[in-house]
Amino acid sequence: MKKFINEVGNVEKEMIQGILKAYPDKIDVIDSEGTFVRKEKNDNKVAVISGGGSGHEPSFAGYVGKGMLDAAVAGAIYTSPAADRIYEAIKAVATSKGVLMIPMNYTGDIMNFEMAAEMAQMEGVITDMVVTNDDVAVDNSLYTVGRRGVAGTVLVHKVAGAMAETGASLDEVKAVAERANSNVRTMGVAINPSTIPAAGKPGFVLGDDEMEFGIGIHGEPGVRKEKLKSANEIVDMLLEKILDDLDYTGSEVALMVNGSGGTPLMELYLINNYAHDVLKNKGISVYKTFVGNYMTSIEQEGFSLTLLKLDGQLKELLDAPCDTAAMKI
Amino acid sequence: MKKFINEVGNVEKEMIQGILKAYPDKIDVIDSEGTFVRKEKNDNKVAVISGGGSGHEPSFAGYVGKGMLDAAVAGAIYTSPAADRIYEAIKAVATSKGVLMIPMNYTGDIMNFEMAAEMAQMEGVITDMVVTNDDVAVDNSLYTVGRRGVAGTVLVHKVAGAMAETGASLDEVKAVAERANSNVRTMGVAINPSTIPAAGKPGFVLGDDEMEFGIGIHGEPGVRKEKLKSANEIVDMLLEKILDDLDYTGSEVALMVNGSGGTPLMELYLINNYAHDVLKNKGISVYKTFVGNYMTSIEQEGFSLTLLKLDGQLKELLDAPCDTAAMKI
Repeated sequence: MKKFINEVGNVEKEMIQGILKAYPDKIDVIDSEGTFVRKEKNDNKVAVISGGGSGHEPSFAGYVGKGMLDAAVAGAIYTSPAADRIYEAIKAVATSKGVLMIPMNYTGDIMNFEMAAEMAQMEGVITDMVVTNDDVAVDNSLYTVGRRGVAGTVLVHKVAGAMAETGASLDEVKAVAERANSNVRTMGVAINPSTIPAAGKPGFVLGDDEMEFGIGIHGEPGVRKEKLKSANEIVDMLLEKILDDLDYTGSEVALMVNGSGGTPLMELYLINNYAHDVLKNKGISVYKTFVGNYMTSIEQEGFSLTLLKLDGQLKELLDAPCDTAAMKI
Repeated sequence: MKKFINEVGNVEKEMIQGILKAYPDKIDVIDSEGTFVRKEKNDNKVAVISGGGSGHEPSFAGYVGKGMLDAAVAGAIYTSPAADRIYEAIKAVATSKGVLMIPMNYTGDIMNFEMAAEMAQMEGVITDMVVTNDDVAVDNSLYTVGRRGVAGTVLVHKVAGAMAETGASLDEVKAVAERANSNVRTMGVAINPSTIPAAGKPGFVLGDDEMEFGIGIHGEPGVRKEKLKSANEIVDMLLEKILDDLDYTGSEVALMVNGSGGTPLMELYLINNYAHDVLKNKGISVYKTFVGNYMTSIEQEGFSLTLLKLDGQLKELLDAPCDTAAMKI
């Protein structure tokens, strides 16, 4: 294991401090374990919160700020944050308009977010929840009942955060998050695994000519190993799986080409080039493109493609200003 | 070689198209080889241009736009762009206020920028040049007479671009770029190399317990191989080398923790944490922090630390708005 770290047991804590020192004007923490909250609280809006294991940076601390998340609760690497910490986050950001929780669909996360919400509700906080499940790779997984939430979650956070910023009600913000989630699909692939520092060895092993198709974001193997193909062939495979699941023909979409952490930007751009061509040929119009590391798996070398079907309101919300460490519009 | 590519000979061209498709509202190209220009030309300011080999994405196409660069000329991977293409870029963005070229110090780049400037001057274009050379690793290198230009270049582009945006004269913009360059220092390290697609094998080979200390950005080996150390020890080594070269004690600085392309953000944050601590202990105050992949070497796993000593004007220029693909303030 080659990594720029100190003690394996301290990786998360040192990272959390490093995030705070990078963005002192944007984010704060309310504990030493990475319960990030927006520096300047806005009491006149629905609070939007998320969270999940670490290892996905900039998700989700990087999206805390004006126009996106009010809080992000980070667990240990690839591990759900505990319910009591989510509860503290809810209390810290709650407003009279309520709190919308938007976690990704992993059994541990959902259990802990639900438990936290129950605790907060007993104290009079109004909460609701939308669970993202954009991954078309699997119907169920090692960690989920139903589909996993992956990179598309960031786009759901973007539009929900923008809707909240307008002063909309909890029901209205929830409706936007649900519509975005029901219109977003993601599919991923990897050619090199990630290694959890405390584990010391990679989550899967691949031959020099192999790739994991249908990869998740927690270092687990994909749906199947395949021979490594050209970038264009892989893009075809990923988009086919997405488009089989939801018909985007004739739609305007947001396209996200998301790197897993170790993938060079050069390759993400090259992938973006062909993905645009394929979508155009299928009568799908790309309204907005996101290329970069939005939802990573430590140093995994891989990428995912995400499509979000847009309507007038979602376009407006996607274009609305946001001011976070990792996304600024 | 495991990469998400198609034909090795097409990597740059496909990447260029992918960049254009990602940011159609920000950047344009004037040839098929990656001569990027700002979409909305501003004739009332000094034009600022740079360029160099590809493989450093988002440098420099990602910094073309309001408040930074007016043009960026991309060569093939790790290869200088030809003089005639730089000449075309100069002509495309030139204004009556002149053109400031800010390339990095590599022999081929400087030769070609100078030749291009001579050609443009014969047509009446006023040009001047500031060459960045922030790398303290080596006094001379395989590719340079004098120090190499590396990640600190991005900060020089930021302040020069902001100064140009104020409507300042060519001499004034040049003075800011020179002051920034003379106050910026960078030192880097890598634990895994990059592979140029057309070469098919990495630029250097490291053992499982080795790192390259004093790395450049073109896939070449560093100053020396060392046993891999803890992140904190490496930060100490890099900062020691920088601070030996320029005394930052008592200063306010911008700190850049730059990833080489394959380094997970988790590790860059952890590095940032300790770098802040060391600087604080030395009486150096961090005014602004940049953590991310600003100047990469394809998929190289490594990082560099950059310090820029600030004064009132440089702080203002660093904070001034910019609207580019890779930096938005």
